Amino acid sequence: MGFTDLMTGARVLVTGATGFVGRHILGPLQALGCEVHVISRRPANHDSRGVRYHECDLHNHAGVASLMGAIRPEHLLHLAWDVTPGEYITSLENLRWVQSTLALAHIFVECGGRRIVGAGTAAEYSWHKSPCDEATTPLVPDSLYAGSKLALWHVLDRLSAQGSVGFAWGRVFFMFGPHEAPERLVPVMVDAARRQQSLTLRHPTQVRDYLHAADVGAAFVALLASDVQGAVNLASGEGTDLSALAGLVGEAAGTEVPLELGSTLDDPHPVVVAEVTRLREEVRFTPRFSLRSGLRDTVDWWFRQHGNAGT
Amino acid sequence: MGFTDLMTGARVLVTGATGFVGRHILGPLQALGCEVHVISRRPANHDSRGVRYHECDLHNHAGVASLMGAIRPEHLLHLAWDVTPGEYITSLENLRWVQSTLALAHIFVECGGRRIVGAGTAAEYSWHKSPCDEATTPLVPDSLYAGSKLALWHVLDRLSAQGSVGFAWGRVFFMFGPHEAPERLVPVMVDAARRQQSLTLRHPTQVRDYLHAADVGAAFVALLASDVQGAVNLASGEGTDLSALAGLVGEAAGTEVPLELGSTLDDPHPVVVAEVTRLREEVRFTPRFSLRSGLRDTVDWWFRQHGNAGT
Repeated sequence: MGFTDLMTGARVLVTGATGFVGRHILGPLQALGCEVHVISRRPANHDSRGVRYHECDLHNHAGVASLMGAIRPEHLLHLAWDVTPGEYITSLENLRWVQSTLALAHIFVECGGRRIVGAGTAAEYSWHKSPCDEATTPLVPDSLYAGSKLALWHVLDRLSAQGSVGFAWGRVFFMFGPHEAPERLVPVMVDAARRQQSLTLRHPTQVRDYLHAADVGAAFVALLASDVQGAVNLASGEGTDLSALAGLVGEAAGTEVPLELGSTLDDPHPVVVAEVTRLREEVRFTPRFSLRSGLRDTVDWWFRQHGNAGT
Repeated sequence: MGFTDLMTGARVLVTGATGFVGRHILGPLQALGCEVHVISRRPANHDSRGVRYHECDLHNHAGVASLMGAIRPEHLLHLAWDVTPGEYITSLENLRWVQSTLALAHIFVECGGRRIVGAGTAAEYSWHKSPCDEATTPLVPDSLYAGSKLALWHVLDRLSAQGSVGFAWGRVFFMFGPHEAPERLVPVMVDAARRQQSLTLRHPTQVRDYLHAADVGAAFVALLASDVQGAVNLASGEGTDLSALAGLVGEAAGTEVPLELGSTLDDPHPVVVAEVTRLREEVRFTPRFSLRSGLRDTVDWWFRQHGNAGT
C-alpha cells in the first residue's frame, strides 16, 4: 500500500520515543522501512534494527541544530514534552517546551525537512459540546498546558499554510495502557481491583473517549506516513462512562472494582468524545484494540508487574 | 488619579522602545513617574530623566536573565518584534520572536514581575465580520505573523489565569504616524500628494480602523497602568474607507492625492473595525488625535522631512 512506498528508507526523527505513547512508535516506523533517528536526553537503548539513538537535550538548541544538520531528516515526529503527573498542567516548563518545539521546527525546516507531525491535546477544544470536531469546535484551552499546545498549533499551522513544510497535529484524547503513571485513572482502577479497596468516583456518569496508547502511537505513525494536513483527532470516537470503564477493568481483572459513587450534578464537562472521521477516512487508521481488549492488555501488564496475588 | 498613584516609582521594563509605537511610550511612562528601563540591541540614547538604557539582544536569553535579575522590574511592556516591511508577515523570524517573548515572560515571572502587557494584532481575529470584539470574534489568524501573536496570547492568557502574573494584550489595528516605513499606506499617499503622481487604490471602499501611533503608544501605557486583564483592542472604533483616508491626507497636504480607483468586488475583507468599549470604559483611554488631526500631524512631519517643494 501507499504508505510503505512513501516511507521506505525515509529518514524520520522522533522525539519522546521513550514516553508513554512514544514507546509504541518505533515498531510501526520500522515496519514501514524507515531510517529512524531518536533524540533523547538519556538514550536507554543501543542502535538496533534501523533505529539510531542520539543523546541530546531538546532544550539545547545549538545541540539540536548540530544533530539535525548531521541527520537531515525528512520527517519529524515530535512527541516529547514534560508531562510530570500532578504538575504538567500548570508548570512553567510548558513555556520552555513551546520554545524548544519552535526551535526544533525552525531548525528542521532550515535543514530541508518536509513534514512535521506533533502531539496536541483534546484540551485545546472547548468541552462544552461533544463530539469535538477538528473543523468546527471552538479552540478554548483551559490550562497552561492546553494553551501551550494550542499556541504551537497556531504557529505550525500557519507555517505550513505558506508552503514551508507539511504539518499534521494529532489531538490526543484519553489514553490508557502499560507503563502509565500509577496515579492516573486506569492504574488506580487496576490497583483498586487488586487490593479490593474502594474507589470513589465523583462523576460516575462522566463520559470520555479512551484509546490504548499503542493505538495512539500507531495512529501517529499513520498520520506521519499520510499526506493529511492539519489537526486530526486521535481517539476511538466512542464515549464510555466511568462506571462502565471500571466495569471493564474489573472484568479484565477477573474481579470487581469496588466503587463509591458520587453525583454528577456539578460536572462542568459531562461528555468529551472525539469526532474521528478524519482519522478513519483520511488517515485510514483503524485501532487494533477495542476498549475491552485494550483494557485486558493493560490489566494483564499491571498484574505481571505487581503479581496477581498482591492483595 | 489612580494610575499615577499606582505607577509612581514603579520599575517598568520596556522592549521595542525605539520602534514606530515604542517611541511614543517613554513620555507617558515618565509622566506617570515610573522608573523606566529600556532593553535595546543598540541603545541610541543616554540615560535621561528617569529612563535607563540597557544593551541586550532579546534573543540572548542568558543576557536577558542576567539583566532582569539586576533590574527586577514590576511591569513589563513588551513591544519588540521583527516587523521588516514586506517580510515580517511570513518570516521564520516570527518563530524566534515567540520563543524570545516566552523566555522574557518566564524570566520576568521568576524575577517576581507582576504585570505583563504585550502587543497583539487585529490579524488574530477572523475578518469576516466587523466590528471585531475581544469576547466573541473568532480567533482565526491568516498569517504566520498573526498565528505567532495569537500563540503568545494563548500561552500568556493561561499563564495569568493561574495567578502567576497579571496580563493584558493590546490588539493593534491600523496605524499611521511620523517615522512610518515609506512603503506603508499613509506615507505612500503623502508621497503621491507631494509628487502629484497618481495612486491606484484597488479597493477604494475598503474600510479600516486607523489610529495615530502616538495614541497607540499612550493606550499601551494606559493599559499597563490599569488592572484590566486580557485582550483589549487598541483602535479608534471608527471605520474609514481608503478614498476618504486619501481625501484627508490631501486636505492635510493642501492639495489632492490623485487616485485611480479599482473595484471592490474581489475584496474578501471589506470592513475591519474594532469594538473599543473595553479601551474606553475599562482602560478609560481616549485618543488625543482625531483621524483628521492625526493625519495633519503626520503629513506635517513628512513635509518637514522631505520639504514642501519636493515635486
